[in-house]
Amino acid sequence: MVERVNLNHAAGNPVDKRVLKGMLPYFQEFYGNPSSVHIAGRHATKAVANARMQIVNLVGADTKDRIVFTSGATEANNLALIGFAYRNRRKGNHIITSEVEHLSILNPLKFLVKQGFEVTQIPVDEHGVIKLEALKEAITDKTVLFSVQHANNEVGTIHPIQEIADIAGDAKIPLHVDAVASAGQVPVDISDLGASLMTLSSNDLYGPRGVGALIIRRGTSIQPILLGGGQEMGLRSGSENVSGIVGMGIAAEIAGKELEANIRHLTKLRDRLIKEVTTKMEYTYLNGHPSHRLPNNANIRFSFVEGEAITLYLSFEGFLVATSSACTSRTLEPSHVLLSMGVDEAEAHGALQLTLGRDNTETHIDHFIKALPPIIKRLREMSPLYPPS
Amino acid sequence: MVERVNLNHAAGNPVDKRVLKGMLPYFQEFYGNPSSVHIAGRHATKAVANARMQIVNLVGADTKDRIVFTSGATEANNLALIGFAYRNRRKGNHIITSEVEHLSILNPLKFLVKQGFEVTQIPVDEHGVIKLEALKEAITDKTVLFSVQHANNEVGTIHPIQEIADIAGDAKIPLHVDAVASAGQVPVDISDLGASLMTLSSNDLYGPRGVGALIIRRGTSIQPILLGGGQEMGLRSGSENVSGIVGMGIAAEIAGKELEANIRHLTKLRDRLIKEVTTKMEYTYLNGHPSHRLPNNANIRFSFVEGEAITLYLSFEGFLVATSSACTSRTLEPSHVLLSMGVDEAEAHGALQLTLGRDNTETHIDHFIKALPPIIKRLREMSPLYPPS
Repeated sequence: MVERVNLNHAAGNPVDKRVLKGMLPYFQEFYGNPSSVHIAGRHATKAVANARMQIVNLVGADTKDRIVFTSGATEANNLALIGFAYRNRRKGNHIITSEVEHLSILNPLKFLVKQGFEVTQIPVDEHGVIKLEALKEAITDKTVLFSVQHANNEVGTIHPIQEIADIAGDAKIPLHVDAVASAGQVPVDISDLGASLMTLSSNDLYGPRGVGALIIRRGTSIQPILLGGGQEMGLRSGSENVSGIVGMGIAAEIAGKELEANIRHLTKLRDRLIKEVTTKMEYTYLNGHPSHRLPNNANIRFSFVEGEAITLYLSFEGFLVATSSACTSRTLEPSHVLLSMGVDEAEAHGALQLTLGRDNTETHIDHFIKALPPIIKRLREMSPLYPPS
Repeated sequence: MVERVNLNHAAGNPVDKRVLKGMLPYFQEFYGNPSSVHIAGRHATKAVANARMQIVNLVGADTKDRIVFTSGATEANNLALIGFAYRNRRKGNHIITSEVEHLSILNPLKFLVKQGFEVTQIPVDEHGVIKLEALKEAITDKTVLFSVQHANNEVGTIHPIQEIADIAGDAKIPLHVDAVASAGQVPVDISDLGASLMTLSSNDLYGPRGVGALIIRRGTSIQPILLGGGQEMGLRSGSENVSGIVGMGIAAEIAGKELEANIRHLTKLRDRLIKEVTTKMEYTYLNGHPSHRLPNNANIRFSFVEGEAITLYLSFEGFLVATSSACTSRTLEPSHVLLSMGVDEAEAHGALQLTLGRDNTETHIDHFIKALPPIIKRLREMSPLYPPS
């Protein structure tokens, strides 16, 4: 059997073994419910409180900020947008976002449009960077929220988030930062940014799936979207997933401690991967920003070939990769992110999203850059469009 | 250190060791994302599909029904009510429920009232049983949904769910059954009932926290409340919590296989507990139905004493118990369920909710029925109301 090499960490990370070890006692030994007043309940309450502190520390939040644990980044994004919009409707009905956000931002916003909200989507430049002038110009006296990603998971571009935050701050508009792709990959500091809301995902930090968090800073009003027993300070009902929350907390602590080491490791692999692939093959281009990009992301397009076909051939050789984007790959639609960047539809179909993880090694890169060129060559030989006349 | 005896399983169950064993490979080895088309993704897709079948089998659903995995029973109840109400608004705006539902039913309904819906809450009799005549009379031509629990987690009463289902069926009104407290405790068959929607909780089946399911039968239209990548057949976005879903599936399979054995074991312990406690102490009464009750539930009230005080003294002796109800115990408000049953406010404060689990033994009951009377005696001696004149 071929050794399997995962270059598709955007679809999911293995849970760090230290995280799993920390979670295990909470399945069978310490299975108390934080709502209980007895000792098992108090133990669970403490474990959740400790995880909140680990989240606070990762992103430079304040102990007075509310860290609301959710079932993942999708729920946190839904809560940030729908919960904020409903609660602040008196103040205005206009929300500004970008064209390259995750579907868990864009689809709740579509829902809000049906409820009478107006949404402006800011375009991006050819590197996928949000256009700051357009952002400034979009502000109206009805604007109640900016919601922008820190970095784009699909093409790897890191946006100038401090400048975006400053524009929001100058206009006194609360900012929601979707930090799912950036937290644990690059430094993130909610206090420096002055953001009001921030979304985090556990699995992107090598914690378990099914957990995420929304950070709600002091002075930010929001209403819950899941209603019931009033857990999580009344902002998210449902018995707390204590083992998952404990896991996310440990994952956040490790991600913070090992941030610099991981950046060094991943950047080195990524840069070699990008250089070898884009320089050794013709008609092969990097998508996303050449330097302001996530350490683990290489998104590359190959003219005259379909990304799906490359993915298939690579899988025969043991490589797990995805076309751009992981989340819409089932639909075979071209990525909305690439289209927004001005990549034409045919070229967008040839894009490969390579996302590295802590477990990847130089050897994986060696194998990949050896395996890829013959596949691209073979596929191009089958293409009626190649070589271009 | 005192051995700890858990008589508060309503607050949470330990994860069954066979469940945890089945989950473990999905944290580190098989961490694929069902959205991925490569082999790791296909493996995850299969695991989730298998869990769906295990849920189908537990409650007599059909393979054509949609089993939507959620983050727990609270989210499933929110999805059932808000998702159904929004989607079916053209047909009518009236929903019928009972006075004794869980807060994850009552609070979404309060939200819907603000959105223009009308809700009728059916009262219960002195045993906590929903009044069938009142249910029939509440139906109007605008009624689009019945939402009733199969059993009440707090006082243990099992409602005449087939008769309720027949009333709904005769009136051609879709029925949502909150089966959180009953599934795995007593037989539940969604096909026999002809219900359209059913909520299940993983942890109540001795699966992990943070997972639940909404069963949506063929022909039932519902819209999602968490929006994003379109997972779970478009009805629940967010990367699937594969390990949790696998765990819930195994828990469901075990709960089904061992149902009869668990009923026998728990009923025996429960009956002895109720008999010893209510007959050996004066002014001590069973709450809920004397015979139509959950095998694991004994809810008992003690005149002239506060449940909180009993809880505290019992904790010194190593017993984990809760006042009625577990979910609102933080508020010190008397239980809405007991008040609805006609228990007066002072008496409601004296109610102890004892919920047994698979791990409880005859010895636990021996110890408890020995420990309790001196505590009640001491507390009553401190009460100015005792003995009653």
